[in-house]
Amino acid sequence: MRAVDIISKKRDGGELTREEIDFFVEGFTHDEIPDYQAAAWAMAVVLRGMTPRETYDLTQAMIASGERLDLSQIARRPVDKHSTGGVGDKTTLVIQPIVAAAGVPLGKMSGRGLGFSGGTLDKMESIPGYKSDLTAGAFLRQLREIGLVLCGQTAKLAPADGKLYALRDVTGTVPSVPLIASSVMCKKIAGGAKALVLDVKVGAGAFMSSVRDGTRLARLMVDIGRRAGMQVIALISDMNQPLGHAVGNAIEVREALDTLRGGGPADFREHCLAVAGHLIQLGGAAPSHAAAKRLARDMLAGGEALDKFRRLVRAQSGDERYIEEPDRLPTASIRKAVPSPRQGYLAEINALQVGMAAVILGAGRSKKGEPIDHAVGIVVHHKVGDRVKKGEPLFTVHANDPAKAEEATEQVLKAHVFSRSPVDPLPLFYRTLRS
Amino acid sequence: MRAVDIISKKRDGGELTREEIDFFVEGFTHDEIPDYQAAAWAMAVVLRGMTPRETYDLTQAMIASGERLDLSQIARRPVDKHSTGGVGDKTTLVIQPIVAAAGVPLGKMSGRGLGFSGGTLDKMESIPGYKSDLTAGAFLRQLREIGLVLCGQTAKLAPADGKLYALRDVTGTVPSVPLIASSVMCKKIAGGAKALVLDVKVGAGAFMSSVRDGTRLARLMVDIGRRAGMQVIALISDMNQPLGHAVGNAIEVREALDTLRGGGPADFREHCLAVAGHLIQLGGAAPSHAAAKRLARDMLAGGEALDKFRRLVRAQSGDERYIEEPDRLPTASIRKAVPSPRQGYLAEINALQVGMAAVILGAGRSKKGEPIDHAVGIVVHHKVGDRVKKGEPLFTVHANDPAKAEEATEQVLKAHVFSRSPVDPLPLFYRTLRS
Repeated sequence: MRAVDIISKKRDGGELTREEIDFFVEGFTHDEIPDYQAAAWAMAVVLRGMTPRETYDLTQAMIASGERLDLSQIARRPVDKHSTGGVGDKTTLVIQPIVAAAGVPLGKMSGRGLGFSGGTLDKMESIPGYKSDLTAGAFLRQLREIGLVLCGQTAKLAPADGKLYALRDVTGTVPSVPLIASSVMCKKIAGGAKALVLDVKVGAGAFMSSVRDGTRLARLMVDIGRRAGMQVIALISDMNQPLGHAVGNAIEVREALDTLRGGGPADFREHCLAVAGHLIQLGGAAPSHAAAKRLARDMLAGGEALDKFRRLVRAQSGDERYIEEPDRLPTASIRKAVPSPRQGYLAEINALQVGMAAVILGAGRSKKGEPIDHAVGIVVHHKVGDRVKKGEPLFTVHANDPAKAEEATEQVLKAHVFSRSPVDPLPLFYRTLRS
Repeated sequence: MRAVDIISKKRDGGELTREEIDFFVEGFTHDEIPDYQAAAWAMAVVLRGMTPRETYDLTQAMIASGERLDLSQIARRPVDKHSTGGVGDKTTLVIQPIVAAAGVPLGKMSGRGLGFSGGTLDKMESIPGYKSDLTAGAFLRQLREIGLVLCGQTAKLAPADGKLYALRDVTGTVPSVPLIASSVMCKKIAGGAKALVLDVKVGAGAFMSSVRDGTRLARLMVDIGRRAGMQVIALISDMNQPLGHAVGNAIEVREALDTLRGGGPADFREHCLAVAGHLIQLGGAAPSHAAAKRLARDMLAGGEALDKFRRLVRAQSGDERYIEEPDRLPTASIRKAVPSPRQGYLAEINALQVGMAAVILGAGRSKKGEPIDHAVGIVVHHKVGDRVKKGEPLFTVHANDPAKAEEATEQVLKAHVFSRSPVDPLPLFYRTLRS
């Protein structure tokens, strides 16, 4: 078998066999197939696609490149969740404590990655002392003891995926539904999950802009999960406007803490409760989604979720005082409330533009390894459909640099589009797919 | 400007600007753009194509990566020819001496490359002593003195093309009409030609299998030449059956010598005269193609072409005795005439299968740098349309290994397809395109 023949077969639109995919992924993992062959192959996959069978085989080949976690001693049916990411997506910080409080263990290994704001780990590291690097043993121990972990990659799960992703990032081969689907699923399966909730975001601030494209991606991931014997629920959720109000790092942690205390933005809270409900039901702690969602709401109302979050921070050496006193969290030197330039109904708050403004301020990375500023970001004060008066605060810019504050202000002003006539609010979810 | 953005633009079907193409080729030439980015870009070009304008800009960018030859002191309008290559394609050995004898200088830098038989240089090196490596100065001197040179690359013409071709060869990105066209044309333009005859072969034994595909490639090369201010004639010629009779190295030199002496296979002779006629006319030594072809025929009949070949061999240190006594050329230990298994009209002599048989015998390379056996090959005794009797010699296998001789025999037998009813002979040329 020769790599060039496999590349040529895919170039001509052929369906690769399992043996060919195994050969290619194994060779690439062990540096026997060079980057330039993998890059040509990836571009052929982007433009020619892969069948669900090929995508499943690719997922399995990437799993086989590394270690697998066994969570069977920790839960009857270990659950996990994955969000495709968006602007203001701090859902893990709320969902995980709720689910753990409801008796369903949920350990998460998150990435730092690129994005409009930092990754989940960057957000958690707004809390001084918080340690993200755990050994695989420590991960399992903490998950067993308190039911939640939030750290970086511990075990060497699917190293082929990490290597391929780094190459795709610099060769224009990221936008491929099969490559994205297999990249997400290989880490979830290798991580030991047997049930999974996928939050596939669609809209201006998401990787997939339309419900149709998001559904294609979701369907393929559900298919991979089904072939791997997993239960999978995929939610197609809105990312046309930021989720909640805060877009940044420390300001998102503050919003998550508000939510864990029973407050927080209504859209964000409802989103978290819906996802948490699915996880609780899949984990076997409630007989229906409605019952699971009620249980989730109780965990917020009774403070059990907040308590779980406190235990998480304590277990990973974070300073607990920041939970009781969120004002201790990093604060920007400039906090400027921007008044609405006109009155009307909000027709759009372009999530992409708000996210780009957060990157301008320093809340996100445009290059790998760049430092981020935990304090800065944007807090929008309204949602699509709201009636806004002229002069009323539209959003607040948290900045540490006056010029950047100015640039971000202009960007976020442009992101707000007004209408004279009433506008319907955006839905939280568009559809649900199940394996 | 970032390489990844240029790759992504082509991936999405965009048309690259001249600046983008220059940036990419220059970066790749100087190792600032790594192979993996060039490989992804090349695959995107294979699958998305390039416009004629992009292809011309790519050609110019590759020319700009190296030296250019100036032939203006040698000829008013320097000519060159290029064949896209096929089975039994020894045309240069006959055309070049004819054209030079007619007073039109023609210097050729040939490759060794991969193929069904060796490249033109491998064929010439059947003659002991023949030296293929000349300096640029020696190339120009010899061309001025005797009007013909046949050597390897002397000047560093279009090094970006060499680098890109080596990468395409191992990444499944060879089959792209714009990439092939720019690769051919950049070397011809950098080599100083102002008029060019392209012999684009189509059929079973050629890279382009149909007249339609061959015409697409020819049209693009003619367009590049026109934009560069060149006169170009492209001939779409047949490669469904081997050209002439011999497929190998020394046996092809013998056939070329027969032809230079006024004999040789009729199809091969007529092909050479037609191409030589175009070159003589373009070079200004005859007022029309008909007159130029008559002059070419005279150069064969009067022995002037053979004399030019002799001077070429002498100038490049080859042993002239091999020209007078071709039996001195390397001879295979096994020469087996294979009788026809049946009688009938020859409907097909599959050039690809005959070529593969020659590779089995060792006449060609399947990997770069492999040694070749100059003595071995196949001589077919008939052409499509011929009436053949059962038991009459169909072809002769020249081999140095009995097992390989057996394997090649079976292969070439399969290549011959018979018909009970009469079959028309194949044309030499399908069409002619001009700039």
